[in-house]
Amino acid sequence: MNIGSFGIIGGDKRQLYLADSIRNDGHIVRLFGFDSLDDGSVDSENNLSDVISMSDALILPLPLSRNGKDIFAPFSSEPISIDDIAMLTDMNKPVFCGLKINSGISPLSAHNCFFYGTREEFAAANAIPTAEGAIACAMENSDITLCGSDCLVTGYGRIGRVLSMFLRGLGATVTVSARKYRDIELIRAAGMASERIENISGHFDFIFNTVPSLILDRKRLEAIGKDSLIIDLASLPGGVDDSAANELSVPLIHALSLPGKVAPKTAGKIIKNAVYNIIGEESL
Amino acid sequence: MNIGSFGIIGGDKRQLYLADSIRNDGHIVRLFGFDSLDDGSVDSENNLSDVISMSDALILPLPLSRNGKDIFAPFSSEPISIDDIAMLTDMNKPVFCGLKINSGISPLSAHNCFFYGTREEFAAANAIPTAEGAIACAMENSDITLCGSDCLVTGYGRIGRVLSMFLRGLGATVTVSARKYRDIELIRAAGMASERIENISGHFDFIFNTVPSLILDRKRLEAIGKDSLIIDLASLPGGVDDSAANELSVPLIHALSLPGKVAPKTAGKIIKNAVYNIIGEESL
Amino acid sequence: MNIGSFGIIGGDKRQLYLADSIRNDGHIVRLFGFDSLDDGSVDSENNLSDVISMSDALILPLPLSRNGKDIFAPFSSEPISIDDIAMLTDMNKPVFCGLKINSGISPLSAHNCFFYGTREEFAAANAIPTAEGAIACAMENSDITLCGSDCLVTGYGRIGRVLSMFLRGLGATVTVSARKYRDIELIRAAGMASERIENISGHFDFIFNTVPSLILDRKRLEAIGKDSLIIDLASLPGGVDDSAANELSVPLIHALSLPGKVAPKTAGKIIKNAVYNIIGEESL
Amino acid sequence: MNIGSFGIIGGDKRQLYLADSIRNDGHIVRLFGFDSLDDGSVDSENNLSDVISMSDALILPLPLSRNGKDIFAPFSSEPISIDDIAMLTDMNKPVFCGLKINSGISPLSAHNCFFYGTREEFAAANAIPTAEGAIACAMENSDITLCGSDCLVTGYGRIGRVLSMFLRGLGATVTVSARKYRDIELIRAAGMASERIENISGHFDFIFNTVPSLILDRKRLEAIGKDSLIIDLASLPGGVDDSAANELSVPLIHALSLPGKVAPKTAGKIIKNAVYNIIGEESL
Repeated sequence: MNIGSFGIIGGDKRQLYLADSIRNDGHIVRLFGFDSLDDGSVDSENNLSDVISMSDALILPLPLSRNGKDIFAPFSSEPISIDDIAMLTDMNKPVFCGLKINSGISPLSAHNCFFYGTREEFAAANAIPTAEGAIACAMENSDITLCGSDCLVTGYGRIGRVLSMFLRGLGATVTVSARKYRDIELIRAAGMASERIENISGHFDFIFNTVPSLILDRKRLEAIGKDSLIIDLASLPGGVDDSAANELSVPLIHALSLPGKVAPKTAGKIIKNAVYNIIGEESL
Repeated sequence: MNIGSFGIIGGDKRQLYLADSIRNDGHIVRLFGFDSLDDGSVDSENNLSDVISMSDALILPLPLSRNGKDIFAPFSSEPISIDDIAMLTDMNKPVFCGLKINSGISPLSAHNCFFYGTREEFAAANAIPTAEGAIACAMENSDITLCGSDCLVTGYGRIGRVLSMFLRGLGATVTVSARKYRDIELIRAAGMASERIENISGHFDFIFNTVPSLILDRKRLEAIGKDSLIIDLASLPGGVDDSAANELSVPLIHALSLPGKVAPKTAGKIIKNAVYNIIGEESL
Repeated sequence: MNIGSFGIIGGDKRQLYLADSIRNDGHIVRLFGFDSLDDGSVDSENNLSDVISMSDALILPLPLSRNGKDIFAPFSSEPISIDDIAMLTDMNKPVFCGLKINSGISPLSAHNCFFYGTREEFAAANAIPTAEGAIACAMENSDITLCGSDCLVTGYGRIGRVLSMFLRGLGATVTVSARKYRDIELIRAAGMASERIENISGHFDFIFNTVPSLILDRKRLEAIGKDSLIIDLASLPGGVDDSAANELSVPLIHALSLPGKVAPKTAGKIIKNAVYNIIGEESL
Repeated sequence: MNIGSFGIIGGDKRQLYLADSIRNDGHIVRLFGFDSLDDGSVDSENNLSDVISMSDALILPLPLSRNGKDIFAPFSSEPISIDDIAMLTDMNKPVFCGLKINSGISPLSAHNCFFYGTREEFAAANAIPTAEGAIACAMENSDITLCGSDCLVTGYGRIGRVLSMFLRGLGATVTVSARKYRDIELIRAAGMASERIENISGHFDFIFNTVPSLILDRKRLEAIGKDSLIIDLASLPGGVDDSAANELSVPLIHALSLPGKVAPKTAGKIIKNAVYNIIGEESL
């Protein structure tokens, strides 16, 4: 690749590990937006303009922004405006962002942007730390072992597949709810029980929801009872009727953004792989 | 469903198990084309016209025909012409066939045909007997155990996924060759090594090819050496240079049409499920 | 069984779940030593003498005592002397204790004691929450996923077997160090690499020690390097040279008494099963 | 080791692979008793006396003999008398035999014999080809896939453990019958159902017996019904009432001596490992 130096602006621990990992490959990395970490381990630059001009490409965080104005930079002592970044960045310089930016909204929308967060392998790879985080969450929040427990996983997409396989690997009895006939066959091939969500009955010690639509409504929560721990992995508002769960005392945990929380080093490497794959495909 | 009786015309052992399974669900099944099985266990009808007229729907075999003229019916003492079936069958009567028929070629092309063999869940389900058949083939044709062996699976589609999982479950060390970045991540999540086919090196005890294009050419066969057993699961001509394998004395087995051979009862049930799913979706 | 009522004296959360579980089987359970839990969920009795005289059998905790004098009762507002229990308990009344008590030391040594903690199935069952606790510990204390990591498990006894199987089920690459030829074959059958501890080389992301003797000495720690997280599951002093690990900055965690910490409900049920098995075998 | 040359006298294909494997380690191997294999690949010696005198140690087959007089040598055109071997062999020369020989019966009983077939690691390692052979046998003799089938494994010794793990790895639902409380916990940790044999009920597609005593008697066979395939792995007379199975039409296969049949190369290597381990321990 022709890119010899990267500027990483903003982001959390994932971006620090990303920086380490890129450096280990022999590239130059300049960090900006990490000055409030004062353990001395991070060499955050002081001048945004220099970081941008001296880098062949920029890597921005996922999410790009919390407020729509400044870049997501929890370790920066000062806000970093996206406008400033856009203004200082040459229109031809590759800018790696997480998700697509609505054109017209972001000042970066006309730049030479590439999106690592929308790639298939990025989503596939992040299913691993998500599944592990769900398992860690279940272990921490219950008084029983997963081994020997009855688990329900709703949905058999990327996360459902990895999570159900891991649970089975820990000795749990796993039922997966799915609708597609094909998924039902794949679940069976993986040695697990499959059931349509409307036919789910009986007690489960743990219920992991991966479906981003309301599938655990009041009626189903009543059937499930308060002895099940529900861990909802779907983006808010998730797949569970929160207020019904609350009224019925069904324990419910929203476990979100797990990769960055439970395995930032792995998550940083997943970003790197996606960025490198883009560079390879686009001959950057 | 409104279909109370099925006519099953032609086919192999899978269709017999299909008939049993449909009967166990309480439906009437009439068989035609099984008269040369004289163990008395099969009640094959004598009159094609009666079977067709008395059945609410017909089920034809997969493949439909070997010669393009008569239906595939290895257990029939006489050929059964597709023309005859087409002529005797009301245009509105549902006819369940395996794969799509080229219009203009088959006399059935204007009938009310449905294709169970092109459905996703059919292909997904058949990956299981295919993978088991591949494993049985490897066991029969080698003097070592799969447990502790080094296996290469080329391709990570339906069959590659199930097969690699089964091999791992038997204690083999599994490498999967894949090209898509996403698949590489999924392979890693499943606890296996992934590698691009062009980078494959080292010795493998067993190589299972699932890719229907020439990926094991002369050059790669030379690198592989004659101590590997290659089992090619891809439809002919498969993914291996046959003549090169022959000249280099690399043992090569084409293992095809495994579901019907190794698990006809399971395969019959897979056909039934696909037919029932069509009936449900089409409100037949 | 002839025992209709149990007195559970002292212990931690495991004993509360034990009480629940025995009650669910239809027996009477009286608790003593849980009065400082004031969430109202526990009905701790006020009079030790009554609890003892009204119960057909007693269940004492594991460990029996921390100070050699009072029973282990972290939820009791007052110390409960073992002398008192011994004095108040009829010599024929069955008393279920965890581990063997040195005769002459404990005032209970002449009583009708049975030891649930020394039973094979108790140890085997506790390997499960121990292994899960080790996995939770590894997840919490690292920035990478177990999936895709390189793990070393030292020892292939009860805990080593379950832990290595779970790690493999999570997609880790597992090497087990063992000395016995038989274990080396069993490890291979389970699809993992085995190695004698003196030949271990290369980097591991996680090292789980289950061997209760010094196998990770200064020399091996130097070879391992500070990028490995060591989780020592062996009883103190464990199997790692603590001061060397400290000087070499190799991260080391002693993870002990995991069943009661990570899965007290499961651990309580394991105690119940062992007690019931004793009752069955001894026809109590 | 001080042994530089081995004489391998008699035996089947396992001994040929054993010879290859020892040669690959750089030792000299002389074969006797393979002259009827005329494919030219085996260099069988003509003179027993020379083979013995020129070898530092002898390896005899397992079983030693079928008739109590001649060595087991299915590939020899002439019988090879054990008396002759004993007479020609120096009393100090190490002789590796399979199983213990009744003193007084065998002319070798006073020689310097070592027994590879009685070693723990030999039995443990052979559980792998035995389990794979059982699986191959089940695949060949049924019309359904193991994946998705209901399997019962009786006994949780060496073979039961490996076999049940492999079956689970192939996506079967596995129940293991065991009596020991400890085994019941281990089965649970492995993610399978356990049941005492007297409580087994319901249908199983496959029943694998590993217990060498009559546990499947007429009464249990009646309960099992003729839709189960029983594969009896226990040494004759096995664990099934043969005549009752026959009368009740329950399909029953005795699958014996599987390692030599299904994986002679693996079995040969297992013999080699055991012989080498003896050499190491005895400083031969």
